Amino acid sequence: MRSLGVDVLVVGGGAAGMSAASWARRRGPSLRIAVLEATNIISHAPCGIPYYVGGLFSDYSLFQAYDVRFFREKRNIEVITGARAVEADLRSRQITAEANGERVKVEYDRLVIATGARPRRLQGISGPRVLYAHHPAEARELREALAGASSVIVVGGGVLGVEMAEQLARLGKRVTLVHRGSYLMSRDLDPPLGQRLVEELRFMGVTVLLNRSVVSSSDEGSRLLLDDGEEVRADYTLVAAGVEPNLGPLEGQVPTGPHGAIAVDDFMRAGKDEVFAAGDVAEHRNLVTGLPDWRPLAPIANKMGLVAGVNAAGGSLRFPGVAGDLITRVGETIYGRVGLNEAEARRTGIRYLVGEITTRSRARYYPGGGQVYFRVLAEEGSGRVIGAQAAGPEEIIGRLGVVAVALLKHMSIEDLFFAELGYHPSAGRAWDPLVLAARQLLRV
Amino acid sequence: MRSLGVDVLVVGGGAAGMSAASWARRRGPSLRIAVLEATNIISHAPCGIPYYVGGLFSDYSLFQAYDVRFFREKRNIEVITGARAVEADLRSRQITAEANGERVKVEYDRLVIATGARPRRLQGISGPRVLYAHHPAEARELREALAGASSVIVVGGGVLGVEMAEQLARLGKRVTLVHRGSYLMSRDLDPPLGQRLVEELRFMGVTVLLNRSVVSSSDEGSRLLLDDGEEVRADYTLVAAGVEPNLGPLEGQVPTGPHGAIAVDDFMRAGKDEVFAAGDVAEHRNLVTGLPDWRPLAPIANKMGLVAGVNAAGGSLRFPGVAGDLITRVGETIYGRVGLNEAEARRTGIRYLVGEITTRSRARYYPGGGQVYFRVLAEEGSGRVIGAQAAGPEEIIGRLGVVAVALLKHMSIEDLFFAELGYHPSAGRAWDPLVLAARQLLRV
Repeated sequence: MRSLGVDVLVVGGGAAGMSAASWARRRGPSLRIAVLEATNIISHAPCGIPYYVGGLFSDYSLFQAYDVRFFREKRNIEVITGARAVEADLRSRQITAEANGERVKVEYDRLVIATGARPRRLQGISGPRVLYAHHPAEARELREALAGASSVIVVGGGVLGVEMAEQLARLGKRVTLVHRGSYLMSRDLDPPLGQRLVEELRFMGVTVLLNRSVVSSSDEGSRLLLDDGEEVRADYTLVAAGVEPNLGPLEGQVPTGPHGAIAVDDFMRAGKDEVFAAGDVAEHRNLVTGLPDWRPLAPIANKMGLVAGVNAAGGSLRFPGVAGDLITRVGETIYGRVGLNEAEARRTGIRYLVGEITTRSRARYYPGGGQVYFRVLAEEGSGRVIGAQAAGPEEIIGRLGVVAVALLKHMSIEDLFFAELGYHPSAGRAWDPLVLAARQLLRV
Repeated sequence: MRSLGVDVLVVGGGAAGMSAASWARRRGPSLRIAVLEATNIISHAPCGIPYYVGGLFSDYSLFQAYDVRFFREKRNIEVITGARAVEADLRSRQITAEANGERVKVEYDRLVIATGARPRRLQGISGPRVLYAHHPAEARELREALAGASSVIVVGGGVLGVEMAEQLARLGKRVTLVHRGSYLMSRDLDPPLGQRLVEELRFMGVTVLLNRSVVSSSDEGSRLLLDDGEEVRADYTLVAAGVEPNLGPLEGQVPTGPHGAIAVDDFMRAGKDEVFAAGDVAEHRNLVTGLPDWRPLAPIANKMGLVAGVNAAGGSLRFPGVAGDLITRVGETIYGRVGLNEAEARRTGIRYLVGEITTRSRARYYPGGGQVYFRVLAEEGSGRVIGAQAAGPEEIIGRLGVVAVALLKHMSIEDLFFAELGYHPSAGRAWDPLVLAARQLLRV
């Protein structure tokens, strides 16, 4: 049993954890800071897995934004990889990890929990032919397995399922995508874009089965029985049924919220003054509803980690909440959503109006670009902006970021209309598409 | 003499004028609305001229977003083209125009002045070899003249001069660009991007002469004497020395501001209750300084026109002010600025800090993209965001729009840091470049 005493212990070396450690260091130059990471890579995020499997890149080390040596040498942070936390005693401020058969006990003064999320396992699906695509640490095996497959069933039509189906189809594999919703990314998108994703993937040759779920599997997990009696089979089944918070030994020792993740206040404190949580393992406040929300996305994890790190080192930075800004791509089209979609607005009891527009992404006379679609949702009566969705070949991320700021500042549709988006014929319109969508709802 | 009586008269059928007429119509379905336009095209903007000259498109009709027939038939707006206002009597509410030798007298109840801007003429430069590039109505002649030229001097290194120089260089012409400033677009950009523009254009073969101005011309305007004694010559001289407000017969009858353009209040009223002004002919309030400003840019003109039109039809929409969001492109790089630059901040007496970052525009492992540069300026002490500049191959417009909203809402650098920009490896970074620039200035 190895033993260690630190000022700040971070459990989990992914995006949130390494952000927390780095900013604890920046705020507290003389603090003793350590990170326990269960796998052998740190500063990782799963967003690249579909593109590694799809062969867009082959250098596995690129999954890691920075390596252990960087943090040790440049930031004086002790990083222990291959160290999975197995015991937690928050009363005596101790975390015990198992690292290569050895036990490491760490006593801390302040703790940051950043253990992330793990793929949700589906009941009834199991066997050696069943794969998951969540952690970069498993990406190499996943790529090797799928390289030899001529057919794959993807279970789940959320963002990961859609991205994996697209990349596998691009590789020439026969892909069947099984989704419970009536259109793709149905938790994120409204029907216009969700149905367009269905058409795009079908056009690429993917068999998209909607309103269907999996009952059971056989043949090592390569044959699935669906709830309408249909059977589908392929060389492999890839489960992309979402993620769940990965509390591990912290379970029961920290408060959790309605989504099962750790409940934190705006300073990322989790129940005790000296315990913080950040990233995919923790909930946050939704900027529109004011209610607890859980959006396991890298940019949010990065910032929660920064806030937790600063505050664990004695600061008092406040995290304002999340807009839920999600981006994906199929073919040459970038898709995105931010804030509430129609279903979420209805669930929250918000009556809303929709402004939407389809137009060219560039001046009519300027070559290149394509069609761009924007929709903006605003609360009836108050005119408060509550969300937006978009699809197009360029300038989607920044424009949805404009809406994210509108949510942060509780802006009205008039405010959003007056957002001064710049213009050049080569990349936009004199009436910006986002401004046009807002203009639909202008009350004049 | 023809005579006409209308409820709303718009003088000037460019971006601002046609926006005003359309929104007066939307707000007042039964109003009699007329537009007087001096040239033969309406709903025009000069932004496309460099690309028409450069041969990126050849269909001249694309300069017009909508034609006269559309406005007459779909919006019931009387549009009189080729009608230049020659007399104005705001006391008796009359404007007289000359249209094809005939005089047209229009009596109005409410007036919207949207006569735009005209190129600034330089003293000492004249002759048949001197060209200007401001109005699409002259674009065809310009293109024809330049098509036959093997060499061109461009006078003025602002946005139009830079765009013309780039396009002419692309056509294989020998281009000399003479600029008074010590780097290009020196009124808009800070040195890092302004100097990069110099390098880019030089790399494309343009001779860039800085800190130089023109004293006189000879040989029909094809030979220029510079203030350091050097002489430059070419087949043509293209003057791109900025624009000035085009008041015409309104001169002296409406209040003007420090920039020589019409002074309006936030409702676009110009001195009298029934007189409005919008677009390049009018000033506006700067969102950062609160002072009168004058940014003759299409997206601003469009919105000022909308506000003027709505209010001329009885509404009370308030224009919040301008951020000065300007975008251009050289080669594959989009450049942009918003808010105050360093020189403007110093002139206004604002002490500022700069956060800046250069990074890849996409995830390190995702193919394509390139380097992206962002700089953010914030006021020392208060931390209020006051401006930003950027350059990169993609996602520049929307991100600078995020900063424009920060200016609209007087946001701090912390607010901007928490702007939730979405992420996909194919088009952005998990730590967004704009967020990274803001992070440099975070006070933790």
